[in-house]
Amino acid sequence: MSAEILELQASLRAFASEREWDQFHSPKNLAAALSVEAAELLEHFQWLTEDQSRSVPDDKREAIAEEVADVFLYLLQLADKLGIDPVQAAQKKMQTNTIKYPVERAKGTSKKYSEF
Amino acid sequence: MSAEILELQASLRAFASEREWDQFHSPKNLAAALSVEAAELLEHFQWLTEDQSRSVPDDKREAIAEEVADVFLYLLQLADKLGIDPVQAAQKKMQTNTIKYPVERAKGTSKKYSEF
Amino acid sequence: MSAEILELQASLRAFASEREWDQFHSPKNLAAALSVEAAELLEHFQWLTEDQSRSVPDDKREAIAEEVADVFLYLLQLADKLGIDPVQAAQKKMQTNTIKYPVERAKGTSKKYSEF
Amino acid sequence: MSAEILELQASLRAFASEREWDQFHSPKNLAAALSVEAAELLEHFQWLTEDQSRSVPDDKREAIAEEVADVFLYLLQLADKLGIDPVQAAQKKMQTNTIKYPVERAKGTSKKYSEF
Repeated sequence: MSAEILELQASLRAFASEREWDQFHSPKNLAAALSVEAAELLEHFQWLTEDQSRSVPDDKREAIAEEVADVFLYLLQLADKLGIDPVQAAQKKMQTNTIKYPVERAKGTSKKYSEF
Repeated sequence: MSAEILELQASLRAFASEREWDQFHSPKNLAAALSVEAAELLEHFQWLTEDQSRSVPDDKREAIAEEVADVFLYLLQLADKLGIDPVQAAQKKMQTNTIKYPVERAKGTSKKYSEF
Repeated sequence: MSAEILELQASLRAFASEREWDQFHSPKNLAAALSVEAAELLEHFQWLTEDQSRSVPDDKREAIAEEVADVFLYLLQLADKLGIDPVQAAQKKMQTNTIKYPVERAKGTSKKYSEF
Repeated sequence: MSAEILELQASLRAFASEREWDQFHSPKNLAAALSVEAAELLEHFQWLTEDQSRSVPDDKREAIAEEVADVFLYLLQLADKLGIDPVQAAQKKMQTNTIKYPVERAKGTSKKYSEF
């Protein structure tokens, strides 16, 4: 796995341990927290048009970056607790997606593979 | 940034481009998709007790790893579109959290910093 | 449909119209806003144990009631835009669930019907 | 409260009780399930343009109505468990919103009241 990610996970482990937060950090709770942060990220975009979302002003981008960080940090903690390597899981899923969404079928359509 | 993450982002860009999916991949839509995947991840845990969530069987862990991957992949795509470095944003947020949640105050409590 | 719900929907329509918010209230955006409010509701419970969630203190219950209201109001607006009667849809879904989850199979298990 | 809603809540209570599901239906778990269903509702819209979301075909509207029902049913169960009257909470929240979003300030803008 990526050294930067391993470092982040080690820091997160130390951060939670110093604060005695392991009691709260069950995978169930981390999954809920991740979902809440993903919604906070979405909140920034909910009333924007798609075009507006493609060119957000700098101060808003800063606020969005914080939510991206929150989602990422909970994802890393959850993966760590479950012994899942997120980079490897992502690489594997991309291979699956290549098979699920062959170019000739998926080109220009947003249909789910199950609707082809 | 991490080489593995840059590679994943490059693969995702190529994947979307070959399928002409950039038209669908506005930051607004990617944020919605991320949020939907985070909920699919949460779905695996919603009826489990916290204890059960700490020791999921292997086949369930496989299914969870796929959802972790989906969340991660949308997060990387969204960050890429917005020019946000997720690793750097996460490192910065951890520094903020260290200030927001001083050990002496945060120890053993799940309160939000705004409730201290 | 329930008179109280029809009244709420009429009030919501007037409220949005006076503020010229119809331009923002596409079903897509309302569905995103609903999802964001549902996460704000979940946020109140994310670090609680299940037992704690069964007996929340009064001030917290007040705050939760506001989020329940937000979810409900967006649900009513979305249903209104799409011409869906939420009470009728709920009654119909309960009939479906009675078939999907026969007592003898569903008793005491949290399995999804597709896992029976 | 609305008779239809009271009836739905009574049916839901009987449904859960017959299946011995009260053990799973802590407010925490119901809030998670509600959030998951809200995301399934959002999923129908995530790749649509706002315009497309304003005129969904009939079969899709049927599928959306089922998700509307799922969100509604979990909301009613959660409110029931917490002793919250959702109609009354919604009416009260509309009064709050009238104050938070005065017509002259809120007209034509999607800004949050805290950003006025």
